[in-house]
Order: sequence, then C-alpha cells, then structure tokens
Amino acid sequence: MDYDEESLKLHKKYQGKIEVISRVEINNKNDLSIYYTPGVASPCLEIQKDKSKSYDYTRRSNLVAVITDGSAVLGLGDIGPEASMPVMEGKCILFKHFANIDAFPICVDTKDVDKLVETIYLISKSFGGINLEDISAPRCFEIENKLKQKCDIPIFHDDQHGTAIVVLAGLINALKVTNKKKEEVKICISGAGAAGTSIAKILLSYGFENIIMCDINGIIYDGRENDHYYLKEISKITNKEKLKGSIHDAIKNRDIFIGVSKSNLINSDDIKNMNKDPIVFALANPTPEIMPDEAKKGGCRIIATGRSDFPNQINNICAFPGIFRGALDAKAKNIDEEMKLSASLAIANFIKNIDEDHILPNPLDDNLCKAVAQAVFSTAKKNKS
Amino acid sequence: MDYDEESLKLHKKYQGKIEVISRVEINNKNDLSIYYTPGVASPCLEIQKDKSKSYDYTRRSNLVAVITDGSAVLGLGDIGPEASMPVMEGKCILFKHFANIDAFPICVDTKDVDKLVETIYLISKSFGGINLEDISAPRCFEIENKLKQKCDIPIFHDDQHGTAIVVLAGLINALKVTNKKKEEVKICISGAGAAGTSIAKILLSYGFENIIMCDINGIIYDGRENDHYYLKEISKITNKEKLKGSIHDAIKNRDIFIGVSKSNLINSDDIKNMNKDPIVFALANPTPEIMPDEAKKGGCRIIATGRSDFPNQINNICAFPGIFRGALDAKAKNIDEEMKLSASLAIANFIKNIDEDHILPNPLDDNLCKAVAQAVFSTAKKNKS
Repeated sequence: MDYDEESLKLHKKYQGKIEVISRVEINNKNDLSIYYTPGVASPCLEIQKDKSKSYDYTRRSNLVAVITDGSAVLGLGDIGPEASMPVMEGKCILFKHFANIDAFPICVDTKDVDKLVETIYLISKSFGGINLEDISAPRCFEIENKLKQKCDIPIFHDDQHGTAIVVLAGLINALKVTNKKKEEVKICISGAGAAGTSIAKILLSYGFENIIMCDINGIIYDGRENDHYYLKEISKITNKEKLKGSIHDAIKNRDIFIGVSKSNLINSDDIKNMNKDPIVFALANPTPEIMPDEAKKGGCRIIATGRSDFPNQINNICAFPGIFRGALDAKAKNIDEEMKLSASLAIANFIKNIDEDHILPNPLDDNLCKAVAQAVFSTAKKNKS
Repeated sequence: MDYDEESLKLHKKYQGKIEVISRVEINNKNDLSIYYTPGVASPCLEIQKDKSKSYDYTRRSNLVAVITDGSAVLGLGDIGPEASMPVMEGKCILFKHFANIDAFPICVDTKDVDKLVETIYLISKSFGGINLEDISAPRCFEIENKLKQKCDIPIFHDDQHGTAIVVLAGLINALKVTNKKKEEVKICISGAGAAGTSIAKILLSYGFENIIMCDINGIIYDGRENDHYYLKEISKITNKEKLKGSIHDAIKNRDIFIGVSKSNLINSDDIKNMNKDPIVFALANPTPEIMPDEAKKGGCRIIATGRSDFPNQINNICAFPGIFRGALDAKAKNIDEEMKLSASLAIANFIKNIDEDHILPNPLDDNLCKAVAQAVFSTAKKNKS
C-alpha cells in the first residue's frame, strides 16, 4: 500500500487530525451565565486563592502539550514549525486513543535553546504535562533539563525516554529468553543522540554495568577530543575499559547490540563476532542497522526493530500514553527515574508467553496503557514525585 | 439563581470545559501507518515545500488560540495565568458553539510586553488566528500592534474590537430610531481603556465626527499632563474643541453617552443635561454607569447595557465568532478596519424590526454568526486582507 498518497489524501480530507470541542452544552442564557459570565468568576477566584485548584476547575488535569521546534522530525530533519505539525497532531491523537488524554500540538518557531525554554515555561501553567518531541540532540538535553528545573509539571522528551523505556522492557525479556544476567552482559549502543544517550542512562540505572557507546566517530571514550558536554558525560559513565575503535570493533564480544543510528551499519559478520546468543535491537527507521534475515544469518538469537512488519517491534506507543496517564492521575510534579523504570517493568511483565519473537507486547493492546499507568501512578504516589 | 455555586459545582463535575479529540479513527496498524509513521511524512514534506499547505493538511485553517496574560480578567483584575483559565476555556467553547471554530486557551505567565509578544509570536504558526483576551490597558495596545506587525495571521483583541464593533452596530440602529445623523451627533465616551479607545476609533472611521472622551481624570484634551502615549494619541483625534472638566461637564449637550468605565457614575440629572432623545450605552459590568430606570427618569430615549436582563444587550458574542469565521474562511492575514466595519453593519442589519428596545439582535441567534462571517469574508476577499 502507498501510505504516502493515502496519507496525503486523508489529511486533506479531514483538514487536520485534532479538534477542540466543548464538554458542556450552551443552549440558553442560563448556560452562558454558568459557564461564562457572571458564573465563571467563581472558579477563577477559587483558583486565585489556591492554584492547585486549577486541576479541579479546568482541563489541566487531563491536558498535555506536545511541543516541538521542528528541528529533528522523524527522519526528515529540521523542517520547521509548520511542516512538523502533522507529526505533532498524530502524536496528540495517539495520546487520546490510548490514554484518553487531551493533547494539544504546539510548534515553536525558534531553534534558540533559551528562547525555546522560556516560551515553553511561560505557557506551561496552561497544561498538566509537557511532551517534548522531535527536538535535535544535543539541544534536547539542555532544553529538557532547564524545563525540569523551572516547571512544576512533568516534562518528558519522548524521543529520549519513551524509546529508552521500551528498549529496557525488551531487554528485560530478552535476557530471560537467553538466560543472561544484566550484571554480566556486555552492551554496545550505536548512536549517541537523544535515544542512545537516554538508553545508556536507563540501562545503567536498571543495573546493567558494561556499556560502550559509538557515534559517527566511533567508540566514545573518556578524553576523546572535540566532544560536546553531553558526550563527555557519556564517556564518564560508559566504557570503563576505555576501548577505542570503530563500530565493528565495538560490537566484538558483546552480548547485546542496540542501534539508534543509521541504516545498514553492520552485517552478519559483525553478528558472528558477538558473544553466544546475540541480542540485536536495530532501531534505525525505516531501514534498520541490519535487516532481521541478515542478522539471523550471523547467528542472532533475538532481533528487534522499530518496524511493525517484523517481530519484536520497539514502539514508543507502549510507553508514553501510560506514563503520562499515570503521572497526571498522581498529579506528579515530574517523571523521575523510578517512574520510568516501573514503566519498563510493567511493559516487560505485560506479555505473558515470551519467546524469541515475542519479547514485547502488542503496542495496540488497549490494556497495556492501563498497566503502565497503574505502575507509574503507584511509584509516583509512593515517592510523591 | 446562585450562578456562583452552580458554576463551581459544574466546573468541578466536568473538570474543564474543553476537550481535544481525534478527527480520525485509529483501529489498526494500517491507520497508524497513515496518520502516524511512515505516512505522516508526506503531508510534512508538502508543507515544507509550500508553507501555505499547512492550512490544508493540519487543523490550522479552523484553529484559533485564545490567549491572555491574566492581567485584566473580567472585573477581577490581575489574577494570573492559572486563575484566568476558566474564562479562556469559556471563550473557547463560545467559539465552538457559535462558529464551529476549534479554539484553544493559553495563559501566558508574564506581564512583560516584549516577552508576551515574543511568546505569542513563537507559537503563532500553530494557529490560524489569535484572539487576545483580558489583557490590561494600555499594554494591550502595544501588544496587539507588535503582534500584528510580526505575525501573518489575524490578531484580534476582543476586549477592544469586539466591544467596539457591537457598540457601533447598536449606534447605527439607535440613530435610525432617533432620526439622528452620524455627522451631526455629539458623543461622550467614559472610559479610555481597551474598549473605550477602540470604540472611539471605530466610530471615527465609520464617520462620527464629534467625540470627547473621559477617564478617571476627567475630559481628555490635547496637552493634558502625565498622559501615556495612547491617551495622547486619543487626545489628538477627539475633543477638537479642547473642552476640559469632569464627566458631568462632558455629558452636557451630548446626543450619545457610551460608558465603559464604572458603576453608578452618572445619574438622571446628567441625562437631563443631554440633547433631545438621549442615547445611553452604559456598559460597566455587572452594574452599569446608570441603571435603565434611572436613565429613563432623566428622559433617556434608548438605553443599552452589557446585561442580558435588560433590553439592548451589548454582547461581544454578536461579533467575535463571525469575525473569526469569516477571516479564517477567507484565509485573511489580518482583521482590518474595513472588515470590522462590515461586521458592525452585518450585526446592525441582521435585526429587521428595530425600535427603542430592539437595536441589536439576540446574541444567541444561530444565524447571526453566519451573517457576520459572510460580511467579513466578502470584505476580506475583496481587499485581499
């Protein structure tokens, strides 16, 4: 099927995928007097007295902003605010479908980190949470960090954490299938952008110990020259053996390869150089770092991709709807590491009969969001996040 | 009826008055592939090639942001971003009900003019129009002017222009009833804030000639000390006779009094000092500058207020839904003076049998928005606004 043509036709037909409707009826003057003047003054005054009441009297308790600067949209790159809107609207309808969250798309017309942070901060009190989307690395790290410090609502960059949470969920089950232990396995991550960095961090906080990361210049090590701040940070928490070399060197004698980088990066010979029962998550889109049949040819035991036409799809839909549902319901002030880990575990435990081709649940399973939300909610409540 | 208690109860029950829904169904992987990845890339690329396509492939063509800084909300004053949200949500559902426009409320957390302008500008490409709401004067003038210069979508401060448009509509019919002529009547406007200033300007551009304005310091005249820039501007275009004095001096020998100021400001003796067949628009809320019975006692021929429990209600609902509907449908880049005048005329002409107590249409008449939209649309198309 030609998705491009069909998509264009249907986007034009519907003129956008979201709609803002009224939750109340206005049929007469009395309704106007209750929902507009003069009645509307009373919830205003209640909120003025106690700002937390904005969660009772406005849509804030169920409202997430999906915000981008259009700088790293899908595989399309920096396409600007107007052109990124179809993706943001798409994300919003996923929020609604899977988590019944009202999500509203906003594309901000600046690439300046401080301006972007200021803009998002200044509108943040209209929302219950903010999902950052498709913002280029390394800017995305600084933007998210600054917003987390300034705002008192959950800030979540899905390209970082959503992907990382689902990757960890998949790895938890892949270890069960291959009978490997998180403290013992050696991991190679290819790609040190938004997703790769966040994957490394969540794996370390879950208890994996031996990780090396590669970017376009090869293995990242402490002391490598010309690296920006965030890569230097990565070099301090990974690659304790200070290995150097290419991706092909990096993958040797590793148990796990995780690619969030570029298509056709490795081949079956690389897989042959891995430890026994290799686990490969090749997540470049639409063409993975290695195709499943090529990986299998090299002896790969478990292969996951970002695609729905192969087994073991790593899909952020498994995570973000439930994470925000749980965080909003708990009125959490942020989404912390423990909430993310609980989401990974909920996703991993959701699928009952795991095997090589079934390490992750069906992302479209309606009950998955509920399970993730419940886990995140409980963790948030326990820790008062 | 106690609107306050009922309003509080219902706002809590519904947890906000707006909701963001999906216009398309997501039932399977195919739907996901069309409305999200990979299909969504095609509308993105089309918009990247031609930004005007954002009106075809996203909700922009029907989407208005209702934006405030919370600085002048109803009669409540500066209550901040969270507390102003119930009013903004209320405005949004009026847009939906009367004009089928998707309107989304955003409360910006700054009182700094340049920061507010920058924030609104940076998010403006996500919308087809921006309705500014409840921003204090004189800041509102500068904010609107700067935004109109920067943005290529309609910017409309309803507290200024919505009110002015409906006042003009009412006056057009009041002149017919009293058989007075716009070139001959003398007008006194009390209140030089957002509404008063905009009323003066639209009346002048329609062809009224003799206007004096009062604020808390009395009649505004050219050369008055300590006036800010916008009052000085007013002093140059009104009060050609350079009258000085109090509101009670100002109202003497005037045909028309328009109050957008404060309750119980004038009395029946003031009305007695007006010219024959006085026309009084006493729009202070909830208690007008003079109550209708008191005005009638002084010989007032036509009295209009902001209230629905007296005849001749001046209600912005007559104007803003149709104005934005017309502007959006015409893909107008702005809402210019001629479009505003055409809206006034459409409102005035909508009511067929006018008399002293019926100078304006019922704001809840479903067909009124269509008539205003058609007039605004035609004017915009004619002028390519």
